Amino acid sequence: MSDGPVYDKVALIGLGLIASSMFWAGRRAGLAGHVSGYARTQATRDTAREIGLCDSVCDSAAAAVADADLVVLAVPVGAMGAVAAEIAPHLKPGATVTDVGSVKRRVIEDVGPHLPDHVHFVPGHPLAGTEHSGPESGFATLFRNRWCLLVPAPGTSPDAVLRLRRYWEGMGAQVDEMEADHHDLVLAVTSHTPHLIAYTMVGVADDMRRVTDSEVIKYSAAGFRDFTRIAASDPTMWRDVFLTNKDATLEVLGRFTEELFALQRAIRTGDGALLHDYFTRTRAIRRGIIEAGQDTDAPDFGRAKVER
Amino acid sequence: MSDGPVYDKVALIGLGLIASSMFWAGRRAGLAGHVSGYARTQATRDTAREIGLCDSVCDSAAAAVADADLVVLAVPVGAMGAVAAEIAPHLKPGATVTDVGSVKRRVIEDVGPHLPDHVHFVPGHPLAGTEHSGPESGFATLFRNRWCLLVPAPGTSPDAVLRLRRYWEGMGAQVDEMEADHHDLVLAVTSHTPHLIAYTMVGVADDMRRVTDSEVIKYSAAGFRDFTRIAASDPTMWRDVFLTNKDATLEVLGRFTEELFALQRAIRTGDGALLHDYFTRTRAIRRGIIEAGQDTDAPDFGRAKVER
Repeated sequence: MSDGPVYDKVALIGLGLIASSMFWAGRRAGLAGHVSGYARTQATRDTAREIGLCDSVCDSAAAAVADADLVVLAVPVGAMGAVAAEIAPHLKPGATVTDVGSVKRRVIEDVGPHLPDHVHFVPGHPLAGTEHSGPESGFATLFRNRWCLLVPAPGTSPDAVLRLRRYWEGMGAQVDEMEADHHDLVLAVTSHTPHLIAYTMVGVADDMRRVTDSEVIKYSAAGFRDFTRIAASDPTMWRDVFLTNKDATLEVLGRFTEELFALQRAIRTGDGALLHDYFTRTRAIRRGIIEAGQDTDAPDFGRAKVER
Repeated sequence: MSDGPVYDKVALIGLGLIASSMFWAGRRAGLAGHVSGYARTQATRDTAREIGLCDSVCDSAAAAVADADLVVLAVPVGAMGAVAAEIAPHLKPGATVTDVGSVKRRVIEDVGPHLPDHVHFVPGHPLAGTEHSGPESGFATLFRNRWCLLVPAPGTSPDAVLRLRRYWEGMGAQVDEMEADHHDLVLAVTSHTPHLIAYTMVGVADDMRRVTDSEVIKYSAAGFRDFTRIAASDPTMWRDVFLTNKDATLEVLGRFTEELFALQRAIRTGDGALLHDYFTRTRAIRRGIIEAGQDTDAPDFGRAKVER
């Protein structure tokens, strides 16, 4: 569909799940003339070189961004500011800087002030991921049919935004634009709080001495198994998410505990009608998600229904 | 592996996800000479007849259990007692009665007193399911590599237990025996409380007016999607689970909120080290589950990793 690369040179700063998937997805679609990469640790750079991740792997972020038309900050949210300060003097005039952080207000506050006026800053967030992390976890179809939210400040060059949109669409994503604070609240509901809850439930299971580890693991076929998958996500990334999207997360958590206490009270008092009504209502939301194409109706995520 | 059917006649009382999967799994493995079925509603019985579910579909539970060597109670936990009272006079001497309820102490209390001395009562619980329900949701491989827990009272005929074990193993399950109260606590941790939490989180998302329904649904790719799957499970079944496993669920919920408040406090005070340590610990449990064969390491449940 595209006529030639969207960018002549793309620099990926941080080489984890998202950046490595961007490399493979972009290569498949021919979206970049050259992709340079940089990772903080020598071990990650070595792995990237071994598996052919990026056309060139640089030993400094400054070297990676030299002459790049698009710079992608793909590090934990808490590290974005320092990386921006490091690369700022080396950015090509007219380049676009974006990021893939799960929180947007804090990234804008931390990154924005470091960037020179001669670059375009278009913060972004692809809503895609798995519980795996690191340079070997990426794959070309991670973004297919997933949303990527762009959060440009008012006044940002429409051309720069459009070009970045074409880049994400070329990797298979659908692109929407959103205001930063609204993004952070929506994600607190759909992603951040659910992750915190999953982490908590898995921690509780680990703590219960009467229910030995082996039993929790052995009999995890039910709902708990999905929680453990969520709770296996990258600890550094998620620590930073909660610390940098504090207000929205605490607000949603407050509502969550309020609702949980209402259901807990219904259990204690034996109010079956309340429970049944509640569980019937939540079922409808699931149907909406399937109709919206964000999941399949296949039972139990990939345990495919087979012939009888 | 088996030489002929394990039971000459099996009666399935209730024709939802579990019973219909038992029929298809048993037919594939040749485990029963004849399977009779009964469902409370005419609509379900009609559907069963249309899709060939069961060798015979009866219009009363009494007719279904006549001459059956194994009777399987596959109705919501809250309905078990009434069904037991109804079938008791019609049970064949020497028959085995089992159930598939998610709670065991209450089923034993509700069903046991109705059964005549001339039958064997071996309560059971297959740890398998999907978010779908009803007679059309079953499939033959549902129990493959899943656990089925049997909870026989002390003094139960070893032959009756062994035979039921062979039946479940014939459907692909692994079988363990467990004491009823311990079962209820283990399941409160691994299944019941996670389901309640998922229901709650989905309810919160539905309630937040500033985050419209369409956005919650549209951007659900992250952790929330798994919650909606869990929260789409059968409302009647889950209402009964919480009402009948009240004590264990409330105990685990108490621990859950205690832990959640500790994490919430860490977010509020900015204690990144506590969060990082917690998230690192939960990751290890996930590895245990994969090593125990209760899930695959494929990222994101069925979004298969493809070639780069």
